[in-house]
Amino acid sequence: MVHTYSMIHDDLPCMDNDDFRRGRPTLHKTYPEGHAVLAGDFLLTHAFEVLSEAPLLTDSQKNQLIQVLAKSSGGHGMIAGQIMDIESEHQVLELETLNLLHRCKTGALLQASALFGAIVADQDASVCESVRAFGADIGLAFQIVDDILDVTQSQQKHGKTISSDMINHKTTYVSVLGVEKSQKAAEHMLESALKHLDSIPFDMTLLVKLANFIIRL
Amino acid sequence: MVHTYSMIHDDLPCMDNDDFRRGRPTLHKTYPEGHAVLAGDFLLTHAFEVLSEAPLLTDSQKNQLIQVLAKSSGGHGMIAGQIMDIESEHQVLELETLNLLHRCKTGALLQASALFGAIVADQDASVCESVRAFGADIGLAFQIVDDILDVTQSQQKHGKTISSDMINHKTTYVSVLGVEKSQKAAEHMLESALKHLDSIPFDMTLLVKLANFIIRL
Repeated sequence: MVHTYSMIHDDLPCMDNDDFRRGRPTLHKTYPEGHAVLAGDFLLTHAFEVLSEAPLLTDSQKNQLIQVLAKSSGGHGMIAGQIMDIESEHQVLELETLNLLHRCKTGALLQASALFGAIVADQDASVCESVRAFGADIGLAFQIVDDILDVTQSQQKHGKTISSDMINHKTTYVSVLGVEKSQKAAEHMLESALKHLDSIPFDMTLLVKLANFIIRL
Repeated sequence: MVHTYSMIHDDLPCMDNDDFRRGRPTLHKTYPEGHAVLAGDFLLTHAFEVLSEAPLLTDSQKNQLIQVLAKSSGGHGMIAGQIMDIESEHQVLELETLNLLHRCKTGALLQASALFGAIVADQDASVCESVRAFGADIGLAFQIVDDILDVTQSQQKHGKTISSDMINHKTTYVSVLGVEKSQKAAEHMLESALKHLDSIPFDMTLLVKLANFIIRL
């Protein structure tokens, strides 16, 4: 829900002004723009309601999940990344700044998803930290792949207008590194993500598969 | 924070398109519109973060507060009211529909504020229900007074462009009842609110004063 809300608001005319998302017209192209803003507001609010009512979790677990979600989607996470993103239009960013932007904008929420699993499974701080770092790296790897797809794939396959990033004069991994080096960077980030799983004393096959699936999207 | 977020989004060009709020230019008039959307998103998210970190509350209290806030500002509360509000433009509403709209749009959040006090004070279900009903009625009374001020006061005093409601062709208490009957309705709603406090076995002087203050704004 939080991811979808962020897409709906990100696609608005006052943000990226995207006409297509997931292969279909964006919400504000189908319904009045005010409805799109409110649909995003609703999804964000409802995410917290659902967590606060989760039937099988303790109050402590619910609070931890809510805190992780609020922090990762808030002013030091996704919204920080979104603000950096808007303010960086028409600017050429350094690679390090681009990494920071996407660690906030994309990585924070993937990091939260990974942490959710560790919290629900009552894992200790060390496992939580490993899983968090895994999610953060996967987020960055995904973003690099997304930037590559943005220039190499057709609208049908990718589901949104090609390269609103170029239209909005945004720095992307491809604009900084080119396609080939971006592919290497994505693979390197995937390796880094998988390394974080090494210290976890459980069978991590599913997370490894998931990571590989995301990067080969 | 949730109230301010709702004002920022409500003032957007795709919603009420208001130029002034609290006597100053609205956020999207001072900063780019995307920043205003994100500032609202941030405030909503941060409200839940603050509750999840409240240092003196138990996990159970924090969860109750989060649940009350999410429900009252969500799809059966404030956002429902906001959707009804947008969809009612250029329509003349019945008094009952107008009441329902404002019980959601304004009343739900005031109801939540009142309930917060009862939850933090570990009160039983009956006190919680009385306080909730008090907040809901005060919310409606406030909205009626707000509609009256909208047509009787100047921009300086009220702090926003006069009657964006009229510009947006919205039904108000004044457009349905006229100023005089609206004043009676506000007083009646205030009485109804205060009556809910009668059954509470504590000194309610402060809440009574607060209720009277809101209505005489």
